[in-house]
Amino acid sequence: MYLVADLGNTQLKLALFDQKGMVQLKKLNRETDFDLFKEHLDSISPETPCIISSVIEEENEIEKEITNRFKTIYLNNSSNLPLKNNYRTPETLGQDRLANAVACHTHHPNQNVLSIDMGTCIKYDFVNATGEYLGGAISPGLQMRLESLSTNTGRLPLLEPEGDVAVIGGNTKESILSGVMNGIRFELEGVIEEYKRQYNDLYIVLTGGDHERFVKAFKYPIFARPNLTLEGLYYILKINESK
Amino acid sequence: MYLVADLGNTQLKLALFDQKGMVQLKKLNRETDFDLFKEHLDSISPETPCIISSVIEEENEIEKEITNRFKTIYLNNSSNLPLKNNYRTPETLGQDRLANAVACHTHHPNQNVLSIDMGTCIKYDFVNATGEYLGGAISPGLQMRLESLSTNTGRLPLLEPEGDVAVIGGNTKESILSGVMNGIRFELEGVIEEYKRQYNDLYIVLTGGDHERFVKAFKYPIFARPNLTLEGLYYILKINESK
Repeated sequence: MYLVADLGNTQLKLALFDQKGMVQLKKLNRETDFDLFKEHLDSISPETPCIISSVIEEENEIEKEITNRFKTIYLNNSSNLPLKNNYRTPETLGQDRLANAVACHTHHPNQNVLSIDMGTCIKYDFVNATGEYLGGAISPGLQMRLESLSTNTGRLPLLEPEGDVAVIGGNTKESILSGVMNGIRFELEGVIEEYKRQYNDLYIVLTGGDHERFVKAFKYPIFARPNLTLEGLYYILKINESK
Repeated sequence: MYLVADLGNTQLKLALFDQKGMVQLKKLNRETDFDLFKEHLDSISPETPCIISSVIEEENEIEKEITNRFKTIYLNNSSNLPLKNNYRTPETLGQDRLANAVACHTHHPNQNVLSIDMGTCIKYDFVNATGEYLGGAISPGLQMRLESLSTNTGRLPLLEPEGDVAVIGGNTKESILSGVMNGIRFELEGVIEEYKRQYNDLYIVLTGGDHERFVKAFKYPIFARPNLTLEGLYYILKINESK
């Protein structure tokens, strides 16, 4: 077994993998579920190799709890990778972006692959068919767009996302949802079109919390892979555990 | 002469129009330029009819200074309009959006016209060839996107906008600029394509502080009209001054 700990600002994801793939996924709240978190760790064999990906710079209680129990590695600049990292500022590359690229390349080693991760931010990451990670793009995610419209104008309401929205919003709610939901859809389409223009035989993977809202909207095949980041971390753990 | 006062959160725009169009535009800072503002008003004849468009709900010093000097109207739900307002929540329709629609329709009365105003928010507003304002969309503007990425993640830097950006950003700065600049460009293209699909003979007008950054990126004709909102307010003033 292998343990992947993806420690976000609010959510802790603990995933167990065997040689065939993910066998268990536990999601916990960083603030409220610390006891549950320790209980869950109790259920995992101390022999299990572990990788931590954390958005928080300094070590904290959560991480200590893991590193005290398991032989743990952190993803960093000296980690072995199954791809060539051509990003020019690897020290500022988000671990989730790198993990996504590694997962894409591991699943499709001889193909041009674009990962689109729709979380707090929308992250685009590209690995070419020769195994070079080239970078990508970062734009505001769905919730971030809805919140920024509300908090920065003081006049617009904070809305929940909704499904299909006509391009012409006939009232203020529809106008905001059209701007945000269709805006993201058009952005995705435009980015994909541009990649397809530059790279033939492009494989596109969609992941992240909001990916389900958008995966059906496309005219070409796009493959949903909800646990792409965890999978990437698992592949990185496997090739680094014996270091 | 006619005086149009567009009173934003930080900027005060005072524009003088004669029958042929705008003859003077003065931009002042709400906080720091109050004396300059009064001086500027001194230079305008008290006979000048005036319209105020303000983003601030309650009356304030700036507005009092104007209404004490000039016969002033406010744009509101009972204002006469040169178009049919089909927006279903007119009480929440931004005055700038309505003014943009009025300007577009006045310039092109028998055409389908889409106004795209690239300010704090990106506002899409559509008037059809029979003079009905149907609504549109609102999405986060350029600066809002750059700021939200920085403030909501805590890890990404706050960047200045830049011109042409490759779709694959090779470092973190390029990734953010690609996501934001190209994201907006693809959003604009997608929205325009969708309108063109629904409405033939579409005339597209681009305005707002960031319009110059994007106007050249399109493959079809898009007309820049920097003072669209002020022009719309002027047309509204003209048909309401004798009420």
